[in-house]
Formats: sequence, structure tokens, C-alpha cells
Amino acid sequence: MKVTFQIQGGEAVCIECSAGENLLELARRANVAMDAPCSGNGSCGKCRVQLLSGEVESAPSRHITAEEYQAGWRLSCCTKVVSDCAVLVPDIAGAYRSRIKTADLNSPREIAAFNQIMDALRGAGIAFTHGYKAVSLALSAPTLDDTMPDNERVTRAIIQATGCARVVIPYGAMARLARALRENGWKVCAKGLLQGEIFTLMDIAPYENTLLCAAAIDIGTTTVTAALLDLDTGLLLAKGSCGNAQIRYGADVINRIIQSGRPGGQKRLQEAIVEETLNPLLSRLCAGAGLDTNAIVRLCIGANTTMNHLLLGVDAQSVRMEPYIPSFFAWEDLKAGDIGLAANAAAPVVLAPNIGSYVGGDITAGTLAAGLWNSEEMCLFIDLGTNGEIVFGNREFMMSCACSAGPAFEGGDISCGMRSTDGAIEACTINGETMEPTLSVIGPEGQKCVGICGSGIIDVIAQLYRHGIINAKGLFVREGKRIKRDRHGMGRYILAFPQESETGREISLNEVDIDNFIRAKGAIYSAIHTMLAAVDMPVECIDRVYVAGGIGSGINMDNAVSIGMLPDVPREKFRYIGNASLMGSCAMACGVQAQEKCGEIAANMTYLELSTYPGYMDNFVAACFIPHTNAALFPSAL
Amino acid sequence: MKVTFQIQGGEAVCIECSAGENLLELARRANVAMDAPCSGNGSCGKCRVQLLSGEVESAPSRHITAEEYQAGWRLSCCTKVVSDCAVLVPDIAGAYRSRIKTADLNSPREIAAFNQIMDALRGAGIAFTHGYKAVSLALSAPTLDDTMPDNERVTRAIIQATGCARVVIPYGAMARLARALRENGWKVCAKGLLQGEIFTLMDIAPYENTLLCAAAIDIGTTTVTAALLDLDTGLLLAKGSCGNAQIRYGADVINRIIQSGRPGGQKRLQEAIVEETLNPLLSRLCAGAGLDTNAIVRLCIGANTTMNHLLLGVDAQSVRMEPYIPSFFAWEDLKAGDIGLAANAAAPVVLAPNIGSYVGGDITAGTLAAGLWNSEEMCLFIDLGTNGEIVFGNREFMMSCACSAGPAFEGGDISCGMRSTDGAIEACTINGETMEPTLSVIGPEGQKCVGICGSGIIDVIAQLYRHGIINAKGLFVREGKRIKRDRHGMGRYILAFPQESETGREISLNEVDIDNFIRAKGAIYSAIHTMLAAVDMPVECIDRVYVAGGIGSGINMDNAVSIGMLPDVPREKFRYIGNASLMGSCAMACGVQAQEKCGEIAANMTYLELSTYPGYMDNFVAACFIPHTNAALFPSAL
Repeated sequence: MKVTFQIQGGEAVCIECSAGENLLELARRANVAMDAPCSGNGSCGKCRVQLLSGEVESAPSRHITAEEYQAGWRLSCCTKVVSDCAVLVPDIAGAYRSRIKTADLNSPREIAAFNQIMDALRGAGIAFTHGYKAVSLALSAPTLDDTMPDNERVTRAIIQATGCARVVIPYGAMARLARALRENGWKVCAKGLLQGEIFTLMDIAPYENTLLCAAAIDIGTTTVTAALLDLDTGLLLAKGSCGNAQIRYGADVINRIIQSGRPGGQKRLQEAIVEETLNPLLSRLCAGAGLDTNAIVRLCIGANTTMNHLLLGVDAQSVRMEPYIPSFFAWEDLKAGDIGLAANAAAPVVLAPNIGSYVGGDITAGTLAAGLWNSEEMCLFIDLGTNGEIVFGNREFMMSCACSAGPAFEGGDISCGMRSTDGAIEACTINGETMEPTLSVIGPEGQKCVGICGSGIIDVIAQLYRHGIINAKGLFVREGKRIKRDRHGMGRYILAFPQESETGREISLNEVDIDNFIRAKGAIYSAIHTMLAAVDMPVECIDRVYVAGGIGSGINMDNAVSIGMLPDVPREKFRYIGNASLMGSCAMACGVQAQEKCGEIAANMTYLELSTYPGYMDNFVAACFIPHTNAALFPSAL
Repeated sequence: MKVTFQIQGGEAVCIECSAGENLLELARRANVAMDAPCSGNGSCGKCRVQLLSGEVESAPSRHITAEEYQAGWRLSCCTKVVSDCAVLVPDIAGAYRSRIKTADLNSPREIAAFNQIMDALRGAGIAFTHGYKAVSLALSAPTLDDTMPDNERVTRAIIQATGCARVVIPYGAMARLARALRENGWKVCAKGLLQGEIFTLMDIAPYENTLLCAAAIDIGTTTVTAALLDLDTGLLLAKGSCGNAQIRYGADVINRIIQSGRPGGQKRLQEAIVEETLNPLLSRLCAGAGLDTNAIVRLCIGANTTMNHLLLGVDAQSVRMEPYIPSFFAWEDLKAGDIGLAANAAAPVVLAPNIGSYVGGDITAGTLAAGLWNSEEMCLFIDLGTNGEIVFGNREFMMSCACSAGPAFEGGDISCGMRSTDGAIEACTINGETMEPTLSVIGPEGQKCVGICGSGIIDVIAQLYRHGIINAKGLFVREGKRIKRDRHGMGRYILAFPQESETGREISLNEVDIDNFIRAKGAIYSAIHTMLAAVDMPVECIDRVYVAGGIGSGINMDNAVSIGMLPDVPREKFRYIGNASLMGSCAMACGVQAQEKCGEIAANMTYLELSTYPGYMDNFVAACFIPHTNAALFPSAL
């Protein structure tokens, strides 16, 4: 039997199979990119294909309307092949590429958040120094009487200019040397790294081009963000984000690890993050800043332990299986060329060190940025990602733990969910009588809504609960114009009717979305609760709460407390600090002291393995209500 | 217009073109491998294709017989496209791969030559020491109470075993670490390089597998030879050779440089030597020795300046154009992974340093092996390759020069030429009366001839001249059963009639072959003559003559002198030492002292640029006769 995957706007891929085989499995075997964050259990509804010819057997799904079914749409994970057939596959890779969102660095908000954290680190005694040098050289051209070869000519000039003892020329620079010297008429800028007596030559640029560029990257399970920095001034040159193309191998780290364990899986997962995600993003940022990717001479990456392993193509199975041993926490010898990153091949790639199997370098970097390591106050740091991680402590001690929240905070597993970019509903109030919403949408004046991001979902759930529209389990208990139910009786709250949205499709939050979100917030709250209990500290000890992650800067802390997501402490103690992992990576990119500080943070951090910790599961079950089975934990919400 | 290249036993490649375009050019544009050592001037006859359909216009060629023409055979370099057509292309790449010839290390001759040179170097004070270590480690398996990550576990054990201060784990070893530890039950052998306080981990093998393997490679313009060595014992593990697949971009370095300068040329030439030549050869040798290519932890390469540049993908145009500046003479920072060699990616690749634009690292390595640098006697070292290189001197001084001999010594540009492997006529005597030859053929008892190698050609020309069958210009002046002429009157001497040869084709030497060979020997002799004159030393000063190269170990020095190829000195001063470049590379592979000695040799060697040297061209013209216009230079041949 033969299945043809016709990729939208692209090629067709054929694969032989037997009757009854699962279409999503076949797509993976044929290496056809398909979005499947739930990894094929029918719950996310993202793996849709349109039947073009032939026949398939497909279980009904709430994600496919009757009209869509009529038009041939099916969920491939719920579909069996019963004859030769052809299906249309939406172009996922293309969609990911086009979803790259670059930040407007003219926006004071972007720059202010960055400067604030860098200034705080400077204030805490972190000096942003590094050994990178850009040395402009006016060389004499060779003649029949001066036949010194290119590499010696450059080496001597660099030794003269820098006083170093030896110049190392890695392959990439050597391969470009002859042409670069001649194209620039022997007036060039040699860029590289001076370490002790050794200068490593990384790039040969035109004489006047003395910019030294570093990249900072946060690799989240769902979202990837990167920034380019000027190593001399520490200023932001460009910033942007996109989805992690590994999403088609599962929404969470466990599914990714399982997929990476299949034949060829390590390579596919590595290609998804390097070639489909990071390289287009870095190339786009470089192009925007007028740079060649060779100009990136240092990269610092904050990523969770699994993302780090998959990035390197290192076997990650041991992260998932007892005794949960990663192949590395810290590892210092990576170069960009080793994994084919779109940067100078000789550029060191510094991974913020992992703390445990489920508390990774992103948290180390985030802790650096949040400043817990230097604080006298007792701080709680909460990173709201697909993995939720919690750090508690101050300059005396720090401990951390992780929980699997799922992608709901970043809009994943939510029918109309999206990241907090233009078109996202980032805040909402609901009139208790009319049940009419007032939406706050990210973007320019007049921007209509496209979907809803994490901070918006918090508001909607808090308001629905406050006005008695949903109950503590998240089920609809009132009816009205804004409440609709499908034929199975599942209720949803309509935030925007089709004519009110940017896309012409209804924007709503249904009971499954609410349930997914309640589980996410329950995971976070119970992790906080368990960790505080483990050190026998009451909520009142907390002097400051840093909330980080892609949930959206519009997060309303009152609402987040009232749904039982964050502990009930005075609101002035809360501070949303955005992408702390990226900020910490930026700091590392700008100097080796910040890098060393990250090493100290990771080495001194106590790691609490929640999955085997007594009481955690009970705490989680109790937290999967609005706000909690024990409402007394949230006195201000009463 | 459309041309289809049907590759023998492979795919078909189509290309669009205009009427009148040259077929060889089109093949190159379509990246179809085609043998063209003369680089397309019609003289070598190697770029044959067979017309399958359509029409072409083709100039007649002495390389295509009437029967072959009838069957559709054409020389692609002499062929214009005049309609849509399809041609059959012999599978060159496959032919090169299948032409890998591995040496029989049970043959005492192979081993003796190797041991003799290694012993001589030991005698000259070269100690074969290196920092490579194979450390067997019995690690404790991780548990829930011992959660140290893999890399720290291995690092600590290596520090304990070696006393080093730091362990560097390059990417390749890191990527394999998790699996290697678990597959071997935590009992492994860590192989790597200890330099000062730093151990660089390169491979993780099973506990008992402690072999450390180095590779030595001679990259000739025509032939590539490689050997694997046991770093501990210095013993040969495997040896083999094959053609340089770059041959399809021209037989000599000048044509190769020109081809590399075309769009994409650098990459194509690099792929030809790395992926089509070296990697199959190294893989074959490793497979024969029961090794994974990852086991190769050090590589040393002797190659001429152009081959070195093309191997690295470094722009070589400046080697060819005044003021003839290579991009490098010596360069120390190459790793196997940089250019994708089939070896451990972190293995250092040591290039024997170049001396000048046309005296390369192969001569440096050859000079090391021949021992001139340690000799009190005045030595002449002659490397008979596509480039002929000469070194003259002793421990007090050394000078070198190069001439372009063409591939004739290795059987190239000779209609029935071949390398000195099984089936090659390596020696020959001719009866002066009957003109009947007595052939000596390489190979097992009863081996019939396939072609003729360099040493055989010397014998044939010497004998033909001695018996007055050819004149001083190499033209036939006697007739007989063994002398045939074609319709243009070109004479040839038949060494084997069709029924006498292995291939069923006639084996002969014609006037063009003889002329090509006379030019090659004229280039060599005039270079020697010019260099001796430059230092004002007569032939009598020479105490010893080392002849190296792939010309064949059966070289008859008497005959070589009598045709005016080598200077007329007493025959006991001559010694044929085979592939000196490979031997020198083997010595370098076995220890850093030999590598340092090569650096000294290159740095102290005076380079004489013949192409601009007064008198060289006159000397060359005078030497293009048998034996010379001034026969008095060869008193013993009179």
C-alpha cells in the first residue's frame, strides 16, 4: 500500500506501508514534518491533514468540525490507512520559519528590561570582561622578494599588535584567509580570542569592521529566543524568537526523549533544533543587524537538561530513566562548528550548567539574572514554561525543583492559545452581569485578537470563577450569549465572535482548555508548596517572588493568586521579569565572570527530585481546583 | 537543448545547454565525474563517452579507433552538442574506489623497506615518543545515591589514572559517551592525548581495546597511499593505495588549480580528495585491520603544496600566480573533523610543512626519510612524481627545486601506462637482432601484462635506443614484426600482442608516449643539472643518489642513466627508496620528534624557483633528447 504526503507548497513524499498503519507514524517514518505536541494521543488536534485521494479510517475528534470532516480533514494520529491514498500536509517547517518574530529594539520596554538586569548584575559586582579582540592590520602585500605565506604574515602582524606569544588559526578562518586578505587589499580586521598568551583567530573582516558579536539563546521546550550583543559595549543588536521545531516530536521533554530514542531520532531531534530553529533565527537576526553569521564569536545558551542533550545529539534516555543520570551537567568544550550552528565555527558555545535532570541551565541562567545568589531577602523564583521550575533561597542557600506543567502557559494545549506576541489577548476583565469581556490585545492600536496567551488565560479563568460562571472544577455553570456548548455538552466562553477576531474564527476558551490550564497551575503551585514544606518555611518567609517565562508581561498577580497558581503573599512582593533565562544568557555572553557565577550557582544549588518526593502527588491533586481544595491557603481570594 | 549523462551502473544526470557547447564542460557543470587528466585538450584520451541517442559533432582522435567510433565512442573534450542527446559515461568514481590496492604485509619486502627507514631514523637519534594514552577504566555504575553525570564520572577516573589536571572532552567523544559507557557496562578504555596537564579524550572503546592507531598518508597528484600504524609499537597495521580522484580535474597541479578557481571548484576538488579518495581508502584499511575509523587518533600527511591547499579547501590561486604565495607553508591547527576525514574528528592532522610553492610537504617528509639532514655525505634526493622534485645537500645545507614532469613516471599520459601494481611491466630487455622483448611483470607467477609502469618504460626506451630502433628524438628508424605504424605514420613498439596480454588488447609504446616520457626525464635531468650548476658543484661531488616515487622498485639505474634521466655517477651510489613521502609521514605519525625534525628541514631548506631561473629552459630543451644534446655528459652510456 502506498501513501503520498503532499506537503503544502512543497514536494511530495511517498512511503510504502501495510493496511491499518497509523498515518502519523508513517509521516514520522517518512520524515515528514507534522505538528504533534501531544505526541499522537489525539488530544492536541494539531496533526491535521486533508485527504486528497484514496480512503482512510479515522476516529471522530472534537478538533475536526463536521464541515472540516466533509472537506477531508482528519487528525493523522487517529487515522489508519486502508487503501493507497494521498494527503495534504500543512507546511509546518515553513510555518515555523515564518513565525520568527523579531523584537523592536526601538521599544523602550525591550531595552529597559535588558538594561535593568545588566545594571543590577554590574551593581552586584559582575564585571563584563572578556578576551575577545578586534585588531585592525595594514599588511604589506607579498612580492617576489617577500614571499611569506598568508598565515605567517597575519600571525606576525597579530603578535606585533597584541603582544601574544602564539596565534592559533582554526580551520574555518584558515580556509577563508587567502581570499579575505586579497579581497580587502591586505587591510583587514583580525577578530579572535586572546586567552593567556594565545590568540585564536576566528574571523578576518574588512579593516574598519571591528564589531565583535555574541549571541545569547534561550532554548525552551516550546519557544526559542535569541539575542545578538555587541561584546564591546554590551548593547543589544537584535532580538527575536520562534517556536521550537522539535514540537512535532512531542510537546514535553518526556515525549521528545522517547522520540529521540527511536532509530535516527537523535539526529532528527538535533536537526529540528539546529537547522530548523536556531539557524534560521540566528541568520535572520544577523541579516537584520547587517552581519555575517561568521561574526558571532561567542554563544551562550540557557536550556533545560533535555534540550541541552538533544541540542548536542547526546543520548538523553538516561535523563528519563532511573537513576536519572544526565550525560553532563556542565561541559566546556563545545564549538559552534561541532553541531553546525550558524555562527563562526570556532566560536565557543557556553551552555549554562544544568542542576539536575529536570532543572536545567535555563534555571541557572535565570537565577543569575534574578539575582537570588546576591540577595539577603528570601526569594522565590518561578519559571513558567512547559517545565515549571522553582528556585527558593538567597545568598546563603538555594534549592530548586521542577514540575511538568505542559505548554499551557505558552498557549500550547489551548485551542485558541498562542505565545504572547501581536494579536494575543494578554489581559481581560469580564462584566459579572452581562458576562461581556473587555480585552487587552498585544500589538499596535486597533489590533484585533488572534488568540490568547498565558496571562490572558489567567485573567479569563479568574474572572469566570469570580463571577460564578465556572465552578471550582472549571466547568460552566451559567448560560448566556457568550457561553456555547458543543453537541457533547462541552461548554466554552467566547472571547471574540468570528467577526471580532483578526482571523475570522471564533476565539474561545473551552472546558478542556480550562482543565489543561488548571493542571498546569496545579503543578506549579503544588511544587512551590512541597518545596517550602521540605525546608519547613511558611509562605510568610517569602520576601520576593520573581515570575519568569513566556506567559506574558501583562500577568495580573491578583488573578494568578486568586486561581491558586501563585502563593498568597502581598502583591508588592511579586515581580514579573520576563525571559530570565535569556537575560542570564545575555550576561554570560557579555563576560566570563557571569559565566563563572553560573557555574557557582549550579554547583551550590540543592536539587529536590519532586517525582519521588513524598506528598507531592497529593499536593498536586489538591491544587487542581480553583483555587485549591484548601481555600484557606488563599485568604485574599475569599 | 538537453544532454543526459547516463552513468554506467548508476543514475542519469540531465542538463540544459545551448547548441555547440562542449560535452566535457557540460559534464563538469553537471558535476558528472569524468577522467580528464589533460584537462580537456584531447591529448590523454581518457574522457571517452558512448553516444546512446541523438547527435554530436566530434573531431577525430587517435584515441578512438574506427570500430570504436562506429560503436558511438567519442572523446567528450572534442565533442560539441548539436541535438538533444544521451551518452554513457564510464563510472570513474566507482573505478577509483575499486582500484584501491591493499598491500600484503606478510610480504617481507613491504615490511623490510619500512623497518629499514624507521631503524635508520632511530639510529639518527629520533625517538618515537608521543602523548597518546589508552587508559582502561572500571567505573562504578550510577545509582540514585550516586548521580554524578557521565562526563564528570569519566573525568574523575581519568584524572585519577593519569594524574592530569584537566580532561577536555571534544564534541565527538561527548556525543558518543553516554552510549559507550552503558554498552560496555561502565568498563571502558579511554583513549586520548596527554599534553602537559591536559588530557584530551578522543575515543571510548571497550575495556580491553587499548590499541592506539595513527594514519600516515602520501597525497600525490596521481596516486594516494596510506598506512595505519600502531602508536605503541610503531608497527604497520595496514597499507594501501589508490588513484587521486581529482584526476578528472586535470593531471597536473596547474590544471587542478585552474579548475578549483571556477565557481564551486574548491569544494569539488576537496570532495574529490576527501570523500572519493581518502575516506574510502582509510575505511578500507580500517576494515581490513578490524578497526573503527574513530580509532585513528593522529594523521600525518605528506603532500605537495597544491595538494595541501586543495585538501583544505583553501584558495590555491596564489600558488599559481606571481608572486607565487601559498596561503601557508606550515599550519598546526587542523583536526580530522574540520575537513570530514574518516578518522576520529578530534584527531590532529599534521601536514608535513611545505618548502615553496612547488616543493611541498611530501618532499619535506621524503627528505626526513632519506636522511639527508643527518648525512655527512653529499646526497641527491630525486622524487619522481607528476611533479619532479630534487633536493641536494647534507647535514650542513640543503636546497631544493621542482619541475613539472607530468604523470608519465606513474604511467599517466602513456597510452598503455599504469601504476606499478599487479600486471605492470616493470622491467624489459629487447633482443637487438630479433627485436623480441623479454618482459618482467609484477604479480604472481604467470601474471600476464596489463600495461607498463615507469620503470618498464625506462627499460624499453633505453633498449630501443641502444639497438638503434629509435633515434635520439625517440622516433622509430627500424621496421619489423614488433614495429607498427598507424595511418598517420606514427610508429609504436609492440610489447605484447592482444593474445599475450591480460586484457586482450595490444600493449605498446608509441612515439607520442616516448615523447611524453622524454619530456618528463628531460625536466628531471635539467632540474638536477641546473641546481648543481647553481651551487657550482660538479656531478662528481655526489656521494649518494636517492630515487623515490611510484616509478616502480624494478628501476634499472643503468638504463635510467643511459637515456639521460639521471646523472652519470657510479651505479653503487644509487638507491631506490620507494615512497619516501609516505615513509616520512609514517615516522611523523609515530612521534612528535620526527614532526619537529620535519619543521626544521622545511625551515632550513633553500628553495630554488626554476621557472624564473636563468638557463633552466635551455637546459630542458637540451635534455629532451636521448640521452642529451651533449652526450659527453653521459660517458658511461657511449
